[in-house]
Amino acid sequence: MLQKPRGTRDFLPEEMEQRREIEWRMRKCARGWGYREVCTPTFESQELYTIRSGEGIINEMYTFEDKGGRKLALRPEGTAAVLRMYVNEGKVLSKPIRWCYLSDCYRYERPQKGRYRQFWQFGAEQIGADTPAGEAEIILLANDLLKASGVTFDLHVGHLAPMKHILRDLADGDKKAVMALLDKHNFEGLKNYLDSINASGLYESLEKLAGCRTIEEAIEICGDFPGMERMAELISVLDSQKLEYKLDLGIVRGLDYYTGMVFEGFANNLGAENQIIGGGSYRLAHLFGGEDVASCGFGIGFDRVMVSLGEFEPERSPVVSVVYTPDVKGRAFEVAAEFRKAGINTELNLLERGMGAQMKHAARTSEYVAVIGNREAEAGTVTLKNLESGEQKEYSLDEAVAEVK
Amino acid sequence: MLQKPRGTRDFLPEEMEQRREIEWRMRKCARGWGYREVCTPTFESQELYTIRSGEGIINEMYTFEDKGGRKLALRPEGTAAVLRMYVNEGKVLSKPIRWCYLSDCYRYERPQKGRYRQFWQFGAEQIGADTPAGEAEIILLANDLLKASGVTFDLHVGHLAPMKHILRDLADGDKKAVMALLDKHNFEGLKNYLDSINASGLYESLEKLAGCRTIEEAIEICGDFPGMERMAELISVLDSQKLEYKLDLGIVRGLDYYTGMVFEGFANNLGAENQIIGGGSYRLAHLFGGEDVASCGFGIGFDRVMVSLGEFEPERSPVVSVVYTPDVKGRAFEVAAEFRKAGINTELNLLERGMGAQMKHAARTSEYVAVIGNREAEAGTVTLKNLESGEQKEYSLDEAVAEVK
Repeated sequence: MLQKPRGTRDFLPEEMEQRREIEWRMRKCARGWGYREVCTPTFESQELYTIRSGEGIINEMYTFEDKGGRKLALRPEGTAAVLRMYVNEGKVLSKPIRWCYLSDCYRYERPQKGRYRQFWQFGAEQIGADTPAGEAEIILLANDLLKASGVTFDLHVGHLAPMKHILRDLADGDKKAVMALLDKHNFEGLKNYLDSINASGLYESLEKLAGCRTIEEAIEICGDFPGMERMAELISVLDSQKLEYKLDLGIVRGLDYYTGMVFEGFANNLGAENQIIGGGSYRLAHLFGGEDVASCGFGIGFDRVMVSLGEFEPERSPVVSVVYTPDVKGRAFEVAAEFRKAGINTELNLLERGMGAQMKHAARTSEYVAVIGNREAEAGTVTLKNLESGEQKEYSLDEAVAEVK
Repeated sequence: MLQKPRGTRDFLPEEMEQRREIEWRMRKCARGWGYREVCTPTFESQELYTIRSGEGIINEMYTFEDKGGRKLALRPEGTAAVLRMYVNEGKVLSKPIRWCYLSDCYRYERPQKGRYRQFWQFGAEQIGADTPAGEAEIILLANDLLKASGVTFDLHVGHLAPMKHILRDLADGDKKAVMALLDKHNFEGLKNYLDSINASGLYESLEKLAGCRTIEEAIEICGDFPGMERMAELISVLDSQKLEYKLDLGIVRGLDYYTGMVFEGFANNLGAENQIIGGGSYRLAHLFGGEDVASCGFGIGFDRVMVSLGEFEPERSPVVSVVYTPDVKGRAFEVAAEFRKAGINTELNLLERGMGAQMKHAARTSEYVAVIGNREAEAGTVTLKNLESGEQKEYSLDEAVAEVK
């Protein structure tokens, strides 16, 4: 038997309806903040991803050459393609640009719980503001989106400015190594690494910074630092909106391209793989041949949000099943069409089977059964049965439609 | 400057909103008929497509090996994957199964007007009915879906039974060759081919059949044929519903796997590439290792429908832009949050610029401007300007929200 490829999923209607419900809540919420949806191709030039992340990322991507020899990759995340689109098409648009998207992404990873080779990311990017207000908006939007989905989560907001200040005298390679160790909370490795580059003196500040929860503490640890006022203003806007979050100056994020503000969110009911959002401020457009423009944004792990929410019953309208005797088929189609015109979801019997079998099938999918026998067809009526109450009554077609509505 | 891959598209918000609007009309219409949405992976085993269409299809697909050596292909159309999903997961479901989907599909074709390398198909499949009522439903649903989208079109309904009857004595290879020529309306080639296999006697019937518009004519041309009663019943159901269509017994369809009913639809305002839907009855599940089950379905060329519709303004709620003086930023964020809570799309100024520049930007995106200056912030009021009428008035926050709603 042919199977779906390893690490991918099929979605049956029950799950799909849950996903569409959450997707629409998110889209509507983003629209409420002025973030309008865009869409980019599923594959892009490999270069788009190697420019930013180095050749190493090729090992984690689905890559291929098309028949014209172009080196392509299925997108491993949403931001790069959206910024490439901005470089190609968005420069004439008035700033700030506010875009959101729901992108399916692909990574060649070992499949495991909550990790799939095709997965979905709901993202938002804000391009061209470069202000604390803009950064605050992205964080507040992320918070609203997650709330709209119904998930419960903890939000951690950080900023790279103090850490960059502490590391300011290190060589670029050492900075990267140190930040990678901090990202993994590997303090033993950090200590050893700093010893090895004769920078042991930084260890205490870095360890303290990772545990610090206010900007005042941060200033105490590393003195006045560039960007301090801006960071303070961001925090003051967030606090003025009574956002529930934890200031976490230990956040580094795997990607080394963030320029200042960074944030992460964690679902309360997931295990080790509980991060459901990551974002921050960054500059990317110039790498793709555009002007150097400040942007900020985030990606929500849509699949993890769905796991965190668990099963639920999306709102649905009642379904009517139309069952009938064989010689009044045309009338049954007409009755079904009338129910549908009134906005009622209506399933028509299609199999050549007796009334009993038709009723049995209807009971599995529907709230009402509309019976069309010879008498009803002749009289232009419908016998409507409410499957919950068991009540059954003959109505005119209009009355039957009104009864279900 | 990095560019999107050849033959693919970026969608900016205006276009994306139009697409989402049509997509949702279709989804809602399909739901009204009991067709619920499913989703399959973007890539599948190459085998899924070569089993049905032969190795030749590899030249038209995006194919690649994953890092585990699996031969994969981006889906070139929607049906095969959905039937593979049925074989894997749908057998326990009660029949008939009614599924719909919106799948992005990929073909390595020469890009041209209305043809892209990534394109979208809205499809529906009905599995396990095998009745004229089931076939009629699929055609009526297709008609309703296209009407719901707003496109104007001609629907051609055909049936392969008479043609198969005429060709019954030919070898399989000859049948295929003849049907391919008929599909292209290449009657000269058909004549030559039939001459070459000593079957010239069939030419006249085939040519007549291609032009025939009633089942009575078909019977006149080829005598009683197997499946005649079933075809007549299908037609009688369609006619009882006053469906506007043309019976077209010249329809063959490129794919040779259709078993009986076939149909096609053509947009009225497109040029040579005007086919927007194709469908029919088929059997596929057994090729993928499942039981042999009758199905019928169709695929709508979503992109062509969009081209046919042209630009339109999707329904949208009014947008409020909140502009403010720098020292009342927190209050401005609060006011924006209150508008959003009431379901109003609200954009907040993010740039550090004067009131004049803020107003100018707002005029491009919004129907209302809510001004928060020092006086308004202190008094808890909002000066609301209606950008269409030019009217401007100071309101309490609640009143301002009510005014926009």
